[in-house]
Amino acid sequence: MVVRRIGLLTSGGDCPGLNAVIRAVIKTAVNEHSIEVVGIEDGYEGLILRRTRKLGLEDASGILTIGGTILGTSNRANPFGYPTERDGEVVFKDRSDEVVSYIGELGLDALVCVGGDGTLTIAHRLFREKGIPVVGVPKTIDNDLYGTDQTFGFDSALSTATEAVDKLHTTAQSHHRVMVIEVMGRNAGWLALGAGLAGGGDVILIPEVPFRVEAVCEVVEERVRRGKRFSIVVVSEGAYPQGGEPFVRRRVADSMESARLGGVGEWVGQEVERLTGMETRVTTLGHLQRGGTPTPFDRILATRFGREAVKLIASGNFDRMAALHGTEITSVPLDEVAGRQRRVPLDSHWIACARSLGVGLGE
Amino acid sequence: MVVRRIGLLTSGGDCPGLNAVIRAVIKTAVNEHSIEVVGIEDGYEGLILRRTRKLGLEDASGILTIGGTILGTSNRANPFGYPTERDGEVVFKDRSDEVVSYIGELGLDALVCVGGDGTLTIAHRLFREKGIPVVGVPKTIDNDLYGTDQTFGFDSALSTATEAVDKLHTTAQSHHRVMVIEVMGRNAGWLALGAGLAGGGDVILIPEVPFRVEAVCEVVEERVRRGKRFSIVVVSEGAYPQGGEPFVRRRVADSMESARLGGVGEWVGQEVERLTGMETRVTTLGHLQRGGTPTPFDRILATRFGREAVKLIASGNFDRMAALHGTEITSVPLDEVAGRQRRVPLDSHWIACARSLGVGLGE
Amino acid sequence: MVVRRIGLLTSGGDCPGLNAVIRAVIKTAVNEHSIEVVGIEDGYEGLILRRTRKLGLEDASGILTIGGTILGTSNRANPFGYPTERDGEVVFKDRSDEVVSYIGELGLDALVCVGGDGTLTIAHRLFREKGIPVVGVPKTIDNDLYGTDQTFGFDSALSTATEAVDKLHTTAQSHHRVMVIEVMGRNAGWLALGAGLAGGGDVILIPEVPFRVEAVCEVVEERVRRGKRFSIVVVSEGAYPQGGEPFVRRRVADSMESARLGGVGEWVGQEVERLTGMETRVTTLGHLQRGGTPTPFDRILATRFGREAVKLIASGNFDRMAALHGTEITSVPLDEVAGRQRRVPLDSHWIACARSLGVGLGE
Amino acid sequence: MVVRRIGLLTSGGDCPGLNAVIRAVIKTAVNEHSIEVVGIEDGYEGLILRRTRKLGLEDASGILTIGGTILGTSNRANPFGYPTERDGEVVFKDRSDEVVSYIGELGLDALVCVGGDGTLTIAHRLFREKGIPVVGVPKTIDNDLYGTDQTFGFDSALSTATEAVDKLHTTAQSHHRVMVIEVMGRNAGWLALGAGLAGGGDVILIPEVPFRVEAVCEVVEERVRRGKRFSIVVVSEGAYPQGGEPFVRRRVADSMESARLGGVGEWVGQEVERLTGMETRVTTLGHLQRGGTPTPFDRILATRFGREAVKLIASGNFDRMAALHGTEITSVPLDEVAGRQRRVPLDSHWIACARSLGVGLGE
Repeated sequence: MVVRRIGLLTSGGDCPGLNAVIRAVIKTAVNEHSIEVVGIEDGYEGLILRRTRKLGLEDASGILTIGGTILGTSNRANPFGYPTERDGEVVFKDRSDEVVSYIGELGLDALVCVGGDGTLTIAHRLFREKGIPVVGVPKTIDNDLYGTDQTFGFDSALSTATEAVDKLHTTAQSHHRVMVIEVMGRNAGWLALGAGLAGGGDVILIPEVPFRVEAVCEVVEERVRRGKRFSIVVVSEGAYPQGGEPFVRRRVADSMESARLGGVGEWVGQEVERLTGMETRVTTLGHLQRGGTPTPFDRILATRFGREAVKLIASGNFDRMAALHGTEITSVPLDEVAGRQRRVPLDSHWIACARSLGVGLGE
Repeated sequence: MVVRRIGLLTSGGDCPGLNAVIRAVIKTAVNEHSIEVVGIEDGYEGLILRRTRKLGLEDASGILTIGGTILGTSNRANPFGYPTERDGEVVFKDRSDEVVSYIGELGLDALVCVGGDGTLTIAHRLFREKGIPVVGVPKTIDNDLYGTDQTFGFDSALSTATEAVDKLHTTAQSHHRVMVIEVMGRNAGWLALGAGLAGGGDVILIPEVPFRVEAVCEVVEERVRRGKRFSIVVVSEGAYPQGGEPFVRRRVADSMESARLGGVGEWVGQEVERLTGMETRVTTLGHLQRGGTPTPFDRILATRFGREAVKLIASGNFDRMAALHGTEITSVPLDEVAGRQRRVPLDSHWIACARSLGVGLGE
Repeated sequence: MVVRRIGLLTSGGDCPGLNAVIRAVIKTAVNEHSIEVVGIEDGYEGLILRRTRKLGLEDASGILTIGGTILGTSNRANPFGYPTERDGEVVFKDRSDEVVSYIGELGLDALVCVGGDGTLTIAHRLFREKGIPVVGVPKTIDNDLYGTDQTFGFDSALSTATEAVDKLHTTAQSHHRVMVIEVMGRNAGWLALGAGLAGGGDVILIPEVPFRVEAVCEVVEERVRRGKRFSIVVVSEGAYPQGGEPFVRRRVADSMESARLGGVGEWVGQEVERLTGMETRVTTLGHLQRGGTPTPFDRILATRFGREAVKLIASGNFDRMAALHGTEITSVPLDEVAGRQRRVPLDSHWIACARSLGVGLGE
Repeated sequence: MVVRRIGLLTSGGDCPGLNAVIRAVIKTAVNEHSIEVVGIEDGYEGLILRRTRKLGLEDASGILTIGGTILGTSNRANPFGYPTERDGEVVFKDRSDEVVSYIGELGLDALVCVGGDGTLTIAHRLFREKGIPVVGVPKTIDNDLYGTDQTFGFDSALSTATEAVDKLHTTAQSHHRVMVIEVMGRNAGWLALGAGLAGGGDVILIPEVPFRVEAVCEVVEERVRRGKRFSIVVVSEGAYPQGGEPFVRRRVADSMESARLGGVGEWVGQEVERLTGMETRVTTLGHLQRGGTPTPFDRILATRFGREAVKLIASGNFDRMAALHGTEITSVPLDEVAGRQRRVPLDSHWIACARSLGVGLGE
């Protein structure tokens, strides 16, 4: 089959490097293979609501360093279950056949889907159930995708998180405080562990290692005994106490008195203050981790992934995801990736490293 | 009077540039005037609890670029009312006479107090009531000190806040969201106004202009009509709705379910989402604004202030605060500064500028 | 006169903040005054070669944070003397009448000229000699324009230069070297003085203070005696030795062996190495100082200047330049600005500050 | 053998991450293995001139984020050939036996040598010829060490170089210029290739691919034809024209007229200007690439390497270098590393990627 035209979509949470992928897909497709690229707006939503536009070399110009995605994205649009209001209730409707028709009308020979686990699982279903030739590109700032050593976006988020830890350090020291910082990572602790190691955190709490708040306090107090009247605690949003459950950030929005129920970071901060009597402050880093210009590492990785996606298509290799193995770019079947997570192994070198350096893990 | 030895303390919230002041005080005192410098630890607490150390040229080495303060600081230590526990209750005890004695024992001919309104008010009382020759250096990231065009620390905090707005911009755009960011500024809106202007915010809410949430929504919806499906709202922590009161961030700490009652940023976010139906996300920047290496502007301003403090002492000008007027460093009586605030004038150029650019102020 | 349409050009060397001015001009003109804006490409060259385009609100979108100028610029295009080749020789031809005609054809009621001394001098002539209603906006990374406390671009260049000094510091220290860094500033030493103060330089050489290389060496050697085996020397490109002349960077381009004749930084480096025997390294910062995203300070200043330019036009105040005086934006007659330079006064506070801190000025 | 005390030295050119290695060695040795650490000053020079000091946990505090090395370094001190002046001439004297004696006196059971190829080759000789138990840690910003996927320092240098390319981009675009930037990399093009890919360079010249200047001009001119009136050329300092030889930067230091003979970057700039007639500017990035705070990636990698060095010693594995293979830390024999270089393979993915994106390699 000669590929003449491909579709490209970015889906799921914002992530530095998306535009670098888009640029690499366009340049490789147009320059090397004379393939046309059709940009699909706002992830799968553009396939459902029929919003697309042609992407030429001029669209690839000047976007490499810019955060976000020029195509837009959406978190919840799923062709196999698109939310629709019926009689005042939200029901989920399978609109995948419409999507298949639209892809046909657009004359797309293949589809590049850039996203995380959810995005890639949908891509895999589009291939398996509907016969759409898809290729995936792994994106997540959490770095918890299966099948690749690293996702693009992680290095940039790590950079933002580490810079935040650096900033809190001097304040902690000047005020003799415990500073708690909650970073992203609902299921995997890569970001907290990375920022903790890179920022010189004293305690790192991750979802893979349920913690005891007493163990956190022991580290803090041991440091005080050694003359260090401050501590830095880095917490994954998905960390939780032994015997407890992951925190769910809830929102109550009915009055000016309304409250956001805090996450695990705030709970840890309160408990540490209560148990040690030390002044404690909590920072929840939030969406800052998704934004900003990508790091050079992520720009290069995203560029390599984008090129690989086109190469896979040009050589007829579908239902696969571009992946980093060691220093090489390769690909893995989407089937192996979909629905799985790459969590921090308890015997991983990063964890061993944290232990050797005397970092507390809340055990 | 020949000045032979001076004391130096940093007090109040952490602020980029404190070490630059310390460095300039030491260098100017030792190099130019052969004055000894005694560092007082943790602000006024060091005078009460008798914690001091000698500061020589070697202590000034390598600290210019480092955030925080090598002397430590405290927020609550006041010689005229130091918290003491008596019969299980906290009472405030006047320990200013002890402080005067200690200053005498140390042989200090004068005292440099680096801090905000609270710190400088105490300094003024030490001079007026106890005859201690004091000189003040104006510090606050909020820029709300009276008597100086700008405080050191503000430019650095503005840099951190603007960088955060920049990062949220691309996410807002990619996801078609309203992004609300709450920055510091309990009484004055300089930081929100500055970060809003510098970051291209669409709405800026400050304490000086009580807002209507409907006016915020109007801007957001007008932008949607013009094809801009995202908006950035920058909010001072001290902003509040017309007819309402400033939010007080409260903490309830009795169970794992406990909640931090959100600030004004979260309330605005919830209201905008409720009223417009648009997806909204809130970021509370918090302590990140106090940390990090100072900007060149702040390093220079802090250096100039530190030098001026020593010059004032060497020329016998006490009870004054170093100040920036235009491009010049001068000084003003502490009496004019203490207990007053420099809020954003409603007819200021920054506000006029925001209006001209079409930025909403929530009116 | 009712102003309906204005022209806007950016001219001279690249400078962070140009796009912020463009954005503010467009937004203020269109939003507040319903004035149309015509963008002139590549500075005065666009007026001579007739290259313009309409600028609407959509052109102002997303450019605030981006370096460079979306209108392009040129260094040498002067309507009163435009270089033309005739018989193999370059002659300068007065094309100002063509420019006047073109401005008439475009229906421009006024012209905003953003640039440095050269740009503003031409603007002034266009007003005085040709009756074109002009308004100027002061731009230069050197900060040497007369009539304003500061130009936009300076704070950003200072930020780049200071960051470079910071980076060289640790290398100097680790290798026990003298690191010389040459920064921009042909006629005025603001940038070197600022980066030297902010970066903790040990010697600062500026055009206003002709130096003796022996005095530089004395500082370096005195530091060695005090146990500091490294030194940082910050040099303006326009600095020169006592009794000598400013260096002119020449280029000889005739063979692979060809050489760029070094600037003053390299000469100082060689002399210091020769005279002290200490290992010395030279960095010439060059064009990096002109690029990058503007600092928040520059974004705000550029925005205020851009707005002021439109206000001046709307109120019929021509032949003036927007200016910063203290914290206020005002304006000054171009006649006072053209052909003059704001050099560092020898009795300025920055220089006094450098002396107090023990920084050598090569005297 | 029970290891009780080890020596630690950093040698060769400055590199971000050295202090992170030092910190990890101290923390792992002291915390986990109760091994004492002796710091050797200025690389091998400290072993020859007997300058050492004890390193405790307190020395590891606060250095993680700081560039340079607290131990100092030297480029030329070799125990097997230490330069000595004899009768006005420099001769190289073998002082390795003195070094062995000194190591014995210090009671060192092993030696950790952090450095590049030169440093590690000496370490290997100390083991093989003198029986000193050594372990190496691979350091170079050039990333050209054999036996490891990446060295620490490279990611930080790449970050500095890419930021510089970003800054030049807007200037190039605004002025319609060719901007040439010369980055480090005498033997290998990793840094130029990385910064070129990450910064969106149009031409990348590396030592592995001798270039034709005509091919560079073709890219530049082809871009002009496509409406892009600017180009970015990233050049390794070790790049050279086909049929030519690598440039050697020479210094002539005998008069004020003296010149630094330019490097390949300047030559390329001059040739491109001469052949295309386009305005061209050259930036030589120089020592900035060695300085600054390490990136999170480098901090983590350096930490892992430092820990691994201690682990190797504790388990009696000498004459090996810590290495990164994929995501794992392992070790390789120094014999395989010494005297070899890891250049960019012509069939590497980075080069394929550059080609696919239409980047010129000067072929």
